[in-house]
Amino acid sequence: MINRDIKVLIVGLGLIGGSYARALIKKKFHVTAITKEQSSIDYAIKEKIIDEGYSYVNESAVKEADLVIFSLYPHVFKDWISKNQHLFKSGAVITDVTGVKKSVVYDIQDMLRKDVEFIAAHPMAGREVYGVENSTEKIFCGANYIVVPTKKNTQRAIKLCEDLGFILGFERVSILTPKEHDNIIGFLSQLTHCIAVSLMTCCENEHLFSYTGDSFRDLTRIARINEDMWCELFLLNKKALTEQMDIFIKEFTNLRDLIDGENEEKIKEKMRLSTKRRALFDKK
Amino acid sequence: MINRDIKVLIVGLGLIGGSYARALIKKKFHVTAITKEQSSIDYAIKEKIIDEGYSYVNESAVKEADLVIFSLYPHVFKDWISKNQHLFKSGAVITDVTGVKKSVVYDIQDMLRKDVEFIAAHPMAGREVYGVENSTEKIFCGANYIVVPTKKNTQRAIKLCEDLGFILGFERVSILTPKEHDNIIGFLSQLTHCIAVSLMTCCENEHLFSYTGDSFRDLTRIARINEDMWCELFLLNKKALTEQMDIFIKEFTNLRDLIDGENEEKIKEKMRLSTKRRALFDKK
Repeated sequence: MINRDIKVLIVGLGLIGGSYARALIKKKFHVTAITKEQSSIDYAIKEKIIDEGYSYVNESAVKEADLVIFSLYPHVFKDWISKNQHLFKSGAVITDVTGVKKSVVYDIQDMLRKDVEFIAAHPMAGREVYGVENSTEKIFCGANYIVVPTKKNTQRAIKLCEDLGFILGFERVSILTPKEHDNIIGFLSQLTHCIAVSLMTCCENEHLFSYTGDSFRDLTRIARINEDMWCELFLLNKKALTEQMDIFIKEFTNLRDLIDGENEEKIKEKMRLSTKRRALFDKK
Repeated sequence: MINRDIKVLIVGLGLIGGSYARALIKKKFHVTAITKEQSSIDYAIKEKIIDEGYSYVNESAVKEADLVIFSLYPHVFKDWISKNQHLFKSGAVITDVTGVKKSVVYDIQDMLRKDVEFIAAHPMAGREVYGVENSTEKIFCGANYIVVPTKKNTQRAIKLCEDLGFILGFERVSILTPKEHDNIIGFLSQLTHCIAVSLMTCCENEHLFSYTGDSFRDLTRIARINEDMWCELFLLNKKALTEQMDIFIKEFTNLRDLIDGENEEKIKEKMRLSTKRRALFDKK
């Protein structure tokens, strides 16, 4: 497992960065944070979820870090590395939480100094609220963590990143290539956000809260969406996402036509397949 | 409020019928049940959620009931009334929990004896599991209850049905016409079930449970679906449902094209609208 004497630096102390900090400080790691807002640092210090924090790029904080975790928007993350990578400690391992990989991992690995290593990861956890004030390590309980190495990564860094997933409290740690990751996330995460948004925007429905059941609430929980982050993620994964959307439209239109044609047997067949498959997805 | 001395008969002791029984017995009503399976009666007696129960149409149980609640599939419900309505007590009020109304309410009211009254209702609560063993009155907490009267209904029965909603523990009781109800439910409930099923059937995804986050879990919870009940409900509300499906397909395809065209401003505008509207739907 990861040596507890290492120093961890979290860059970007929002919902996910804050949840990482909470999990790591409980496991006795030394956690430093760099983030834009001084108020987030103040909150995190008060709550004792970081040891130290800065609202600017504190050079010695970067220089001392053995493990640097970026929890920033993809374009901000790339900019940060390009401006500040001269500060990294030689031998440091860098990881991230970004929701798309192909458009991020190769660029970062190409520009990065040869004596530090970037290993990408995607924690499949989140909430529909933002900020360190809403962070909680409970979102990792029962959740999945995906390590996304390329051919450039060493076994040491892959192992360290897998260990990080378990230390954070994730239930299951898997490995995917950047391409596999982006296709799967296009389906599991991005497609579902597109559906939730479309459900809320397809018709005037503001008066309907008096009549709704949990089905509609569940399908639209993620329709409260951070437009800057998700728009960026959608466009960075445009090809995989629009392919998944096309596959979904085709299947949904097929079901619509079966209902219109009152094809009971085929409708029930789809429901049986749906029921059988969905049983696999419950949290253990 | 409803006089607690009345005798309540629940016909169909499954998830919803059982949850009604639990709520009503706690409020000290006398609750009798008629249902197909003796094992459901045995369970309900053992759990003390009914006072008496029968796996056949016990004549005196029907004759003594002041309030009869049907929790059956629409076609079974209609058959039951047509065969056994001679047994109802004069002055009895009959209600239901059926998920579609236009195709049920008028038929029942037309065939019913003039000295009993049918007032339709739809509890917007459920679970993705079945049977009295999974019933719990907690599903009504924070939930919506819709009373669906026609011009034939008396104020007395409408009031009684509204009171029933509150007694069961629902948060909000509303009134809709059968047509309004079916359109709204086509959108809020049936459309969302069609989406969930299509998400599970649109591609082979059985290995994806290792990578999923809560978004996909939330959007597909209701993809575990009772195919006989939902297929019947879909076909009974075919016109409203396919209209809602067409509206959704149009909006979703529009979002797909905005992503494909990288129209950031329009995508973010939709996300802002979605976020604003969704805030209204959280349980209080």
